[in-house]
Amino acid sequence: MTLVLGIDPGSRITGFGVIRDTGKGCEYVASGCIRTGNGPLYERLQIVYRGVREVIGLYEPVTMGIEQVFMARNADSALKLGQARGAAIVACAEAGLEIAEYTATQVKQAIVGSGAADKQQVMMMVMHLLKLKEKPQIDASDALGIAICHAHTRQSLTPHGLLGARRRGGRLRL
Amino acid sequence: MTLVLGIDPGSRITGFGVIRDTGKGCEYVASGCIRTGNGPLYERLQIVYRGVREVIGLYEPVTMGIEQVFMARNADSALKLGQARGAAIVACAEAGLEIAEYTATQVKQAIVGSGAADKQQVMMMVMHLLKLKEKPQIDASDALGIAICHAHTRQSLTPHGLLGARRRGGRLRL
Repeated sequence: MTLVLGIDPGSRITGFGVIRDTGKGCEYVASGCIRTGNGPLYERLQIVYRGVREVIGLYEPVTMGIEQVFMARNADSALKLGQARGAAIVACAEAGLEIAEYTATQVKQAIVGSGAADKQQVMMMVMHLLKLKEKPQIDASDALGIAICHAHTRQSLTPHGLLGARRRGGRLRL
Repeated sequence: MTLVLGIDPGSRITGFGVIRDTGKGCEYVASGCIRTGNGPLYERLQIVYRGVREVIGLYEPVTMGIEQVFMARNADSALKLGQARGAAIVACAEAGLEIAEYTATQVKQAIVGSGAADKQQVMMMVMHLLKLKEKPQIDASDALGIAICHAHTRQSLTPHGLLGARRRGGRLRL
């Protein structure tokens, strides 16, 4: 039994979803979103960092999946998304979680069975797979979808991205 | 007397510079760069985060300046820069530093006296102002320039960006 975290970062709202991978299927544990408000940049990034650390502290997941970004709309939104993504990934890395990236196509394929599925189809399948009676908030739903994809994939494959890489020491040059 | 940190983040190399603002001028304390290597993304971001925390732990600056990004080259490089920037800013925020953003023009204006100065002119003035005998690495030089700009500006002005904003509580929605 493994607790799996999915994160869908954004500059305004970061969705998260926690599921339990029982080996026979996935069970819903928690989901929600971290809203960063209208404060200065450092404060919004700190809210993402601390929010993710809080979720990890509450539910103690051991592994995290996050969506890979291939085509950001433009340079300005890519910078903002990157900053939130950096804060969320560092929060998971500092908490010692295993981290993997999945493309949007991989997530849709794992949830709906088709890489061409839309957001509503993903949400319906997330609700079905996790036996949810109410629609989750859209970013929370996306995060649950990533968590399910990660649970399905991590047992069988080395996902495209981060998983399985050996930790190497950083170099600090003074 | 205040210890001031400047950071020039990048996806491969993050430059840092620490200066002492004596009230009458700036003295060189340290500079260098954090090289993130070729590991997986989470590891590179963790190297930036831990590297910045290490610099803060070693020199104990109380305030940090960082360059504001206006025009990233393209969405892909903006995402990568954003991730490193997010990791660096969260490291400073978590260490309790005061944080301010400056435009490239503000930095050049503060160092050379002209917003149209090039990188070599900035480096020459950084070397002159801090009495350096050897050329610093280019990212370290940029970081020292931001630190000098921050030292000059923080006493007299509210810089464009983060400084002076009140901390507000984040909202974590479960």
